Amino acid sequence: MADGSDQRALQYEQTLMYGRYTQELGVYAKEEAARLRESGPRRSVSEQSRSLDLLEYKGRCAKCRICTVRCQKFLISRVGEDWIFLILLGLLMALVSWVVDFCIAICLQAQNWMYGGLDSNVFLQYLAWVTYPVVLITFSAGFTQILAPQAVGSGIPEMKTILRGVVLKEYLTFKTFVAKVIGLTCALGSGMPLGKEGPFVHIASLCAALLSKFMSLFGGIYENESRNIEMLAAACAVGVGCCFAAPIGGVLFSIEVTSTFFAVRNYWRGFFAATFSAFIFRVLAVWNRDEETITALFKTRFRLDFPFDLQELPAFAVIGIASGFGGALFVYLNRLIVQFMRKQKTINKFLMKKRLLYPALVTLLISTLTFPPGFGQFMAGKLTQKESLVTLLDNRTWAKQGIAEEFDYIGHAQAWKHPQVNVFVTLVLFIVMKFWMSALATTIPVPCGAFMPVFVIGAAFGRLVGESMAAWFPDGIHADGFIYPIVPGGYAVVGAAALSGAVTHTVSTAVIVFELTGQISHILPVMIAVILANAVAQSLQPSLYDSIIRIKKLPYLPELGWGHHEKYNIRVEDIMVRDVRYITLNCCYRDLHNVLTSGHLKTLALVETAESMILLGSIERAQLQSLLSQQLSRSRRLEYIRERAAAEKKRLSVVSNSDSDDGRQRASQEVRFQISTEESSFSPTRPAGQKPLKPALKRPSVVERPTELPTSPHDHSSIALKNLFCSSPDAEALEDDDVEDDMTLREIAEWEEKQLDEQVDFSTCKIDPAPFQLVERTSLHKTHTIFSLLGLDHAYVTSIGRLIGVVSLKELRKAIEGSVTVKGVKVRPPLASFRDSGTSSSETEATELHKLWDRHKSVSLPGDRTPSESDEKSQ
Amino acid sequence: MADGSDQRALQYEQTLMYGRYTQELGVYAKEEAARLRESGPRRSVSEQSRSLDLLEYKGRCAKCRICTVRCQKFLISRVGEDWIFLILLGLLMALVSWVVDFCIAICLQAQNWMYGGLDSNVFLQYLAWVTYPVVLITFSAGFTQILAPQAVGSGIPEMKTILRGVVLKEYLTFKTFVAKVIGLTCALGSGMPLGKEGPFVHIASLCAALLSKFMSLFGGIYENESRNIEMLAAACAVGVGCCFAAPIGGVLFSIEVTSTFFAVRNYWRGFFAATFSAFIFRVLAVWNRDEETITALFKTRFRLDFPFDLQELPAFAVIGIASGFGGALFVYLNRLIVQFMRKQKTINKFLMKKRLLYPALVTLLISTLTFPPGFGQFMAGKLTQKESLVTLLDNRTWAKQGIAEEFDYIGHAQAWKHPQVNVFVTLVLFIVMKFWMSALATTIPVPCGAFMPVFVIGAAFGRLVGESMAAWFPDGIHADGFIYPIVPGGYAVVGAAALSGAVTHTVSTAVIVFELTGQISHILPVMIAVILANAVAQSLQPSLYDSIIRIKKLPYLPELGWGHHEKYNIRVEDIMVRDVRYITLNCCYRDLHNVLTSGHLKTLALVETAESMILLGSIERAQLQSLLSQQLSRSRRLEYIRERAAAEKKRLSVVSNSDSDDGRQRASQEVRFQISTEESSFSPTRPAGQKPLKPALKRPSVVERPTELPTSPHDHSSIALKNLFCSSPDAEALEDDDVEDDMTLREIAEWEEKQLDEQVDFSTCKIDPAPFQLVERTSLHKTHTIFSLLGLDHAYVTSIGRLIGVVSLKELRKAIEGSVTVKGVKVRPPLASFRDSGTSSSETEATELHKLWDRHKSVSLPGDRTPSESDEKSQ
Repeated sequence: MADGSDQRALQYEQTLMYGRYTQELGVYAKEEAARLRESGPRRSVSEQSRSLDLLEYKGRCAKCRICTVRCQKFLISRVGEDWIFLILLGLLMALVSWVVDFCIAICLQAQNWMYGGLDSNVFLQYLAWVTYPVVLITFSAGFTQILAPQAVGSGIPEMKTILRGVVLKEYLTFKTFVAKVIGLTCALGSGMPLGKEGPFVHIASLCAALLSKFMSLFGGIYENESRNIEMLAAACAVGVGCCFAAPIGGVLFSIEVTSTFFAVRNYWRGFFAATFSAFIFRVLAVWNRDEETITALFKTRFRLDFPFDLQELPAFAVIGIASGFGGALFVYLNRLIVQFMRKQKTINKFLMKKRLLYPALVTLLISTLTFPPGFGQFMAGKLTQKESLVTLLDNRTWAKQGIAEEFDYIGHAQAWKHPQVNVFVTLVLFIVMKFWMSALATTIPVPCGAFMPVFVIGAAFGRLVGESMAAWFPDGIHADGFIYPIVPGGYAVVGAAALSGAVTHTVSTAVIVFELTGQISHILPVMIAVILANAVAQSLQPSLYDSIIRIKKLPYLPELGWGHHEKYNIRVEDIMVRDVRYITLNCCYRDLHNVLTSGHLKTLALVETAESMILLGSIERAQLQSLLSQQLSRSRRLEYIRERAAAEKKRLSVVSNSDSDDGRQRASQEVRFQISTEESSFSPTRPAGQKPLKPALKRPSVVERPTELPTSPHDHSSIALKNLFCSSPDAEALEDDDVEDDMTLREIAEWEEKQLDEQVDFSTCKIDPAPFQLVERTSLHKTHTIFSLLGLDHAYVTSIGRLIGVVSLKELRKAIEGSVTVKGVKVRPPLASFRDSGTSSSETEATELHKLWDRHKSVSLPGDRTPSESDEKSQ
Repeated sequence: MADGSDQRALQYEQTLMYGRYTQELGVYAKEEAARLRESGPRRSVSEQSRSLDLLEYKGRCAKCRICTVRCQKFLISRVGEDWIFLILLGLLMALVSWVVDFCIAICLQAQNWMYGGLDSNVFLQYLAWVTYPVVLITFSAGFTQILAPQAVGSGIPEMKTILRGVVLKEYLTFKTFVAKVIGLTCALGSGMPLGKEGPFVHIASLCAALLSKFMSLFGGIYENESRNIEMLAAACAVGVGCCFAAPIGGVLFSIEVTSTFFAVRNYWRGFFAATFSAFIFRVLAVWNRDEETITALFKTRFRLDFPFDLQELPAFAVIGIASGFGGALFVYLNRLIVQFMRKQKTINKFLMKKRLLYPALVTLLISTLTFPPGFGQFMAGKLTQKESLVTLLDNRTWAKQGIAEEFDYIGHAQAWKHPQVNVFVTLVLFIVMKFWMSALATTIPVPCGAFMPVFVIGAAFGRLVGESMAAWFPDGIHADGFIYPIVPGGYAVVGAAALSGAVTHTVSTAVIVFELTGQISHILPVMIAVILANAVAQSLQPSLYDSIIRIKKLPYLPELGWGHHEKYNIRVEDIMVRDVRYITLNCCYRDLHNVLTSGHLKTLALVETAESMILLGSIERAQLQSLLSQQLSRSRRLEYIRERAAAEKKRLSVVSNSDSDDGRQRASQEVRFQISTEESSFSPTRPAGQKPLKPALKRPSVVERPTELPTSPHDHSSIALKNLFCSSPDAEALEDDDVEDDMTLREIAEWEEKQLDEQVDFSTCKIDPAPFQLVERTSLHKTHTIFSLLGLDHAYVTSIGRLIGVVSLKELRKAIEGSVTVKGVKVRPPLASFRDSGTSSSETEATELHKLWDRHKSVSLPGDRTPSESDEKSQ
């Protein structure tokens, strides 16, 4: 019982805090946790005494039991700690990552085995080569489609949106988890050029969400929005970390990709969880005898003493710039394909009907082209993604060294050698083909990312440049003394970091490649190339994730780009919605009803009067709905009936000297009176409006359920209205069974009409007295900063206390994306803000102030009204 | 002239925006920049035509000149770009870093040479060994003391405070730069265990500040707070980056050490500048023939194929935990020494008199102990910091390998070998001695950091553990197949990262060691050790920088620690200052005068009336001061004299029928009249307040300056209005020289007294209509978040629009540090917030609302007052 009421108190608090910064919730949660912790020892004392009783009875066996109980208690008390959560998350994700990798490897081996076993017949070989991925991808697409369509795609754009504070439904459920893991395994097992990183960010977040739900079953843990978001941010780091065994790169990449403002105090969480996860992930490989000890995933063995020459730097810079253009092209191509598919209505319609056809066709096309005896021989089609990457990062040089020496292609590197064509041609073909294939493959509706394919293409491009350099300078560039031949593998590392950095608009891919290769010797070339690639790509295209956010139309607030100066001239007054839904302090229930039925905002502004428009606070929609439902509740009506009956009796006994209208009037007044009396008798210390707690005591869950929207109707459907609101008829029937509900429908309607005309009593209503306010001349830039910093959903625009508009995320997004500037918004000329900032705005401000001043004067000195009126006229 | 007025306009804008979020300033700056850019082409056209004229005169030579002019113009137009600034900053810092390193190396060589040359006489040797550092340190201390005492110490605490938005005077001047660079060079040249990192963060920030000042001379660049802070954040990254040639670690370390919330959009700046700086720093080494190519600063050569065994991980974890304790101890010891010196009044007094004595004594003590033929032989005293680190990170094992094999100590490693004592003893002595020496040395008032000494101690500790492990497992731990001997150098890397991470409370030291050593193979051990060390150290002590912030009492807002649950129960109402300085809309100049003379706040609250206390906005102190000074200005007095003279004349000509008091009264009224007449005669179409446009017409560029509020002229204050606008005294002096200032002092005093009794006219005053507001029940946690996020200095506490208090950084800091909880603040019991949140708080809110409601009712419907009063009684 106590728990229930506490929970209620917490939820009540949360309701109260709604519309303020989410940070607040964390505080309450911590308090709650502190309270739980405090109550913990108390409980344990009683249990201890109980266990002591047990001891007397049963001796040694009981001792064990006590020990178990204590251990259990200790575990439960610790279970709420962040670090336990993070360890569990890391462990779980490492296991998931390892299992997925293992399954993918088996799938790929199976394909290879089938392909290898059928080498007698090329056609059968082709069939096997093609059918296998088609089946896998089709299954993946179908499975995901049926179980959880939210699992489709990368997941990073969605996580970015969720971390922004937007609630995306069904994105963090168990179903999605299953669909994502199985779908991803099948998709990657097919050998298509798809990645694992993005989905793993999503899977890790799913894990975190599910884990915190699971742990809340144990008690001791608290659930709240702020903590969840912190944990999700850590989970994103874990996702990248356990995917590449790159803890540092994972943390940085996840910060760059998902956050706008980053709280440094959450830094350790990501590092802790990602390190643990990466550690377990690599330990699993050691235990499985894949590796002798913990090393990097794609270990390179470049020489340490002279990694590269200073004079090679221009080549690295070229890789960076070219990768920048390439990255932008990739994002553009990817978007183009999606948009093309959407625009072509006939294709679209057809594909909508046969949803699995598109994946199958794309897979067929790609696998046909990579068929090793066919075109695939020219582009190392035999190699899986991992194998290509390993060969590309090889520290030996493929091109001819000196005159006689030729590199003997052993192992997988053989695939790059073709008897007829040069290795350069193979590389170029690989890059070109893989480029469009990856852009195409990532549009398939299966769980998949684009990071790894892009990474491989980048490595191939780097390798191409490196091999060219090696061919050009066979003895290296370094002039004096030793010969240091050029290492094309180093170029591949640089290219991989640069292209993936350009596509995702991140710098931390540099760190990821160091962690992936286990060598940091190329740090400066990598950093230079990544920065150049970013500079180029960011000026041409949005990042791949932002592009997907736009395509999917997710509710995310885009970043203000560099140098969008025109944005700085837009003010809040240009973009705000002037037609604000508000309620006044002296409104009646009918107004409330009208406002509730006409709008969909979660909170409503409360102003002093419709004339003054002084903003007093904001009220949650649910609060108002409960106010309204209380006013029209059955219990109040029964109360009324009882009163009427009493009045009837009175009238029968005493001669009435008033007419019926007057009597009814008085009756309703008495009703009001009596209710407050009854309430005070029920709970004398509480104010009048706490009545909803009464039924809540019987069924705690009902109260917490947000009462449904009154879908609507206008004035005459008040019965329907009433029925909607009074959602617990049984409970009230029990209470009020002494009074007979003998009112006819017409009478009820009449009574409700009367109730609606009463003035609203806000005293029982939770009002947020400080909703976020902006002034009309706040710039778009500042508004954007405040919205991103505080994770706001909407803000009221006031002018010296007067509510004049409201800005929500939607308006802001439109303004930033520029879609509004064309249509509706008045874009100021660049100099306007300087020209009128001193005059018009201050004039309005001053005017407002004067009005207030005058009003104030007129209130305090009613005789002085004339000058203020003349003032007003003069304006 | 035009530039001046523009600057004035910008400054005016900035003044106007003061008290809002600093982001706003950035916007204005960008607008300003856009404006400047726009005006650029115009200017260039005229210059082009001028150069074309030149062409006709002079032919070919002029062509060159045009070309030069164009290039110059292009450069100037680009000079405002961020990336140019960052490149210059990186270049400059790399040069500074390299030159400082070079000088330090020469200093140390000189000492070595002196010490080596005198090997015939031990006493002379000792004198040379000791005198040299004493002289250098004393010079450094004296020089810094005289030139700029702000240059003393690390600089990171100060930068942390400055980046928080607090302006520290004199910390970013050229004097400080010179003092810091020269002082640091001398201090490090002495061979004391001091570091370079902290000072370099400060030097880089100084560079950035000076550079942006310098570049603003060229024009095209804009100066503003928001941009400066972004640039300072980048500069901190550059400081670390060019100090260790560690761009990534530099960026991360500077973020961890200086920021609370980090804007991801600024990420690239740090990376860009730090990479460039590190690149140039290493290129300089290549050009100086120190290195063959760009490599890491302390390159290690650990084996790549099997860096460490899985079973070695417990040893790494032990290093981490021990380093955590060690780090906390170091911070504690450092603070203890400072506090001891401060508390001992006799010592303190003596040292204050002889400021250079303390540095000299400390240096004498430390250098005596490290004297190689003396005690120094047991602790490798001969080695400089750099040499020790190089030997400690060596990949060979010092302890006995197997039975017969002994490592031959060559080069600097010889210093670790002592014929009598074991290498373990040497290491232990080194660690213990250096530990307290470093803690002591960092208290010397010279520019110095503690990172590097701590790093070296950590490396030594790691080496000790590594050597022990190597002695314990001579054949390595790995069971099957190959023998992989243990690499103690890897342990040294782990130890260095862990201890420096523990002292600074950062995780990014891990990245720094990878970049410093050029090897990332030990990533998992390093990460595990660093995280463990952080966990231990953070639970015991603040970071070294926070400790210094506390010692120096810098105005920094401390972080809310983990698990300080009692903090969550403090509300704003518990810590706010209830006695707010405010001014009312209808106050007179005397009130203004009183408020201004009694308080020191930079902004003052403006409320409706002292009764209602409705917060209308905040006004800057300077604005009010100018209001007051205008009211009492000489020109207004002369105006008054002229008027009086005119009235006198009138009285002489016309027979007066009123007494003198009345006449004076009327005279002042006539003054008002005549002024307004004069104004309207001058510009009949314009409202009264636009007079400043008159001088503006002479200087066209002034028009852009935001003209003061023209304001609907107010009832009683038109005099003030007029005078406010005529703010150019020289112009008026010309105008008013016809009047003789014949008032006596007594008359002036009388006149001023009268002026002070007039009501203030705020219409010409810039009012910030939306100062930051909190509600009384906002928790400390939330307040802290908002203050850190928005960089606030103070916030008003309101309750339904009524001003009830103010919270500034000071109160917040006190509350967080807990110093107030003991004395004055009522700390709520843990459950209080739950108990009363549902009742009392809502009650107060409701009461407030009711009051407002009633007030509102009484205003609109005076007849309805009775029921509302009864309502109030019923509560």
